[in-house]
Amino acid sequence: MNPTKPSIVALITDFGLQDEYVGVMKGVILSVNPQARIVDVCHAIEPYGIVQAGQMLASVTPYFPPETVFVVVVDPGVGGERDILAVRREGVVLLAPDNGLLSVWRDDWRSTDIVRVQQTRYFLSRVSRTFHGRDIFAPVAGHLTLGLPLEELGPPVDPRRIQRVSVPMVRIGGQGDVRGTVIAVDRFGNLITDIRSEVLSELERRQSKGEWRIEVREKSIHGLRSFYGEVDRGKPLALIGSRNTLEIAINGGSAAADFGAEAGTAVLVRTSR
Amino acid sequence: MNPTKPSIVALITDFGLQDEYVGVMKGVILSVNPQARIVDVCHAIEPYGIVQAGQMLASVTPYFPPETVFVVVVDPGVGGERDILAVRREGVVLLAPDNGLLSVWRDDWRSTDIVRVQQTRYFLSRVSRTFHGRDIFAPVAGHLTLGLPLEELGPPVDPRRIQRVSVPMVRIGGQGDVRGTVIAVDRFGNLITDIRSEVLSELERRQSKGEWRIEVREKSIHGLRSFYGEVDRGKPLALIGSRNTLEIAINGGSAAADFGAEAGTAVLVRTSR
Amino acid sequence: MNPTKPSIVALITDFGLQDEYVGVMKGVILSVNPQARIVDVCHAIEPYGIVQAGQMLASVTPYFPPETVFVVVVDPGVGGERDILAVRREGVVLLAPDNGLLSVWRDDWRSTDIVRVQQTRYFLSRVSRTFHGRDIFAPVAGHLTLGLPLEELGPPVDPRRIQRVSVPMVRIGGQGDVRGTVIAVDRFGNLITDIRSEVLSELERRQSKGEWRIEVREKSIHGLRSFYGEVDRGKPLALIGSRNTLEIAINGGSAAADFGAEAGTAVLVRTSR
Repeated sequence: MNPTKPSIVALITDFGLQDEYVGVMKGVILSVNPQARIVDVCHAIEPYGIVQAGQMLASVTPYFPPETVFVVVVDPGVGGERDILAVRREGVVLLAPDNGLLSVWRDDWRSTDIVRVQQTRYFLSRVSRTFHGRDIFAPVAGHLTLGLPLEELGPPVDPRRIQRVSVPMVRIGGQGDVRGTVIAVDRFGNLITDIRSEVLSELERRQSKGEWRIEVREKSIHGLRSFYGEVDRGKPLALIGSRNTLEIAINGGSAAADFGAEAGTAVLVRTSR
Repeated sequence: MNPTKPSIVALITDFGLQDEYVGVMKGVILSVNPQARIVDVCHAIEPYGIVQAGQMLASVTPYFPPETVFVVVVDPGVGGERDILAVRREGVVLLAPDNGLLSVWRDDWRSTDIVRVQQTRYFLSRVSRTFHGRDIFAPVAGHLTLGLPLEELGPPVDPRRIQRVSVPMVRIGGQGDVRGTVIAVDRFGNLITDIRSEVLSELERRQSKGEWRIEVREKSIHGLRSFYGEVDRGKPLALIGSRNTLEIAINGGSAAADFGAEAGTAVLVRTSR
Repeated sequence: MNPTKPSIVALITDFGLQDEYVGVMKGVILSVNPQARIVDVCHAIEPYGIVQAGQMLASVTPYFPPETVFVVVVDPGVGGERDILAVRREGVVLLAPDNGLLSVWRDDWRSTDIVRVQQTRYFLSRVSRTFHGRDIFAPVAGHLTLGLPLEELGPPVDPRRIQRVSVPMVRIGGQGDVRGTVIAVDRFGNLITDIRSEVLSELERRQSKGEWRIEVREKSIHGLRSFYGEVDRGKPLALIGSRNTLEIAINGGSAAADFGAEAGTAVLVRTSR
């Protein structure tokens, strides 16, 4: 084993931190590879929040070292018929249940990317039907950090057969407006939307003279800013946030509280001359 | 030092994560052994929850590598007369205050298992009377990961002298029923009980033709399932959970909310023909 | 690289743990130095709590190994004109925005202690204006753990030019009393004050025969204790806590609830004959 090779496992779950579930997974990973470095990306995914987990994955994978093994356990179907998939893509490895999560991360898959995890020799010797995070995901992740080839885990999977969740892609509408949604509220009360910066760039190209207007609930914000401190304390603003999507914030305050907004709230962007 | 030897410290405390207490303990551990790997098992033990900590310990130790040093700081008696104990058992090492916590984990102890931690050379040079987690537990744990023999910490302890907390063992009652208690509610609202699977197996052997009936508050559940998805979404079920005890859940929902149950709620299992 | 050299990064932020922000920072740190060990000191600093972060820093740095790189991201001015500073002091290295946080930690600085972080070759290639924790702090911290000299990051800073926040030093008043404030409530409901033990020692020297009386809201506590268990369960007490300041507690209970106190509540200490 190359001592400077990163053996990083990055965890995304809906387990929270009040129970022992995440800690036990780490014990199992370290039982297989005592040199693994385990990073908690997020354990506060809403229970069964498949879409939320897939969206978070998309925003974090570019920031981890090559060969990082992501383990995503948001798994309402645990113990039933659903498969567990292992994929290699964009330099990282990923373990996740086959419940549509992968399709939220990326929607184009090749048959060489995905295997079904079924080689029980890499599982714990006793597998429960309620906690595959501990009994399957964790030990398999440990083995993957030790260099186990994906193909050892099981047969390739036809990408047309994996589960898909339909997450509508936000685009410019017929009226030249963009209708999106708040997909997350962060600790600061910032409203993270699903409106990608590319869509706003396209809108700008089309209507370069117009003024931006962002509407949330009954309120509206004019213009797009670059950083929070660009407006006075307590004032609202819209900007492209760290996920590279439209974000609505209050400088030094909470947009969620001020706008009465939450995940699911509609956001409208239009330009007017 | 063997570079592949795991130097793992697993922490269970009632400190929560909003303060700096856990972070400071990690700083001290790493000051003694910069190669230690520290795993947060749980810091959400209810304040002074000795029984909860002991029960959690029982459910996690089998999943950690041999030689893991568990540090359990649930310590209402900090600074007073209570001792700190170090034990070696079932391949792991454990540091905990002598407040009954050990007796919840296991109730049979041998005199060769336990020492009293009193060799101050392994403590911080200045020991407060309010935060032994930082001043005693953390540095001693660091030294233990470096291979310090338990005997160096202090004299052996007669196991009849350690503090005990009486936690009644749930058994089959005279009427052929089993009366247990919810001991934890997890993030999903699942009700974790103290009714071990062995007790239910015994009940099954005795009354193999009967139908299972689990009663919580005024509601009842029929039958025992294997995994959550075995019933329709929104429906209640009972199964053997990841702690190998009876667990009551709602598929895709919260049993705690639906049943109005919490830690302490009574659970009755009976079979009827 | 010396394999036993600690490459420790200690994080203090106001990001919370419900979002992916902290996890992404860790991914970036490990992308630069896969051997870094990352410790979460606290992510529950109140949003924009500059003073709280500086006070916590003062209480934790002595407990970490030499060369630890502290990264403090409480940064309401992100993306604007504020600088990022790197300092070396008391054996540790620190990265923080220039917003007064440093002056809360220590108020005497020399010109050889501080540089302005501006060498973009150590940043991510694309720097947002909303998340410098990920794009600047994390990669720079990674490079510092690899031994990058501070001077490589930018020019020295005249300490008279750094931002300062005025935090009044609590002293003995004209009437021989001490007026302080609750600066934090910990998970147990203990009231952490800004009254340092040195001030109380001085008060004791002056009025050695007097009896201590600590007043919070309408209630008062008599005498100073050494540890929580020194009074009966449910009774209030005052002691010197783990931050070496006056702390007010209820043995086995919550002083915050009992006294109706919170951060900002006034605390008066006097001695009477």
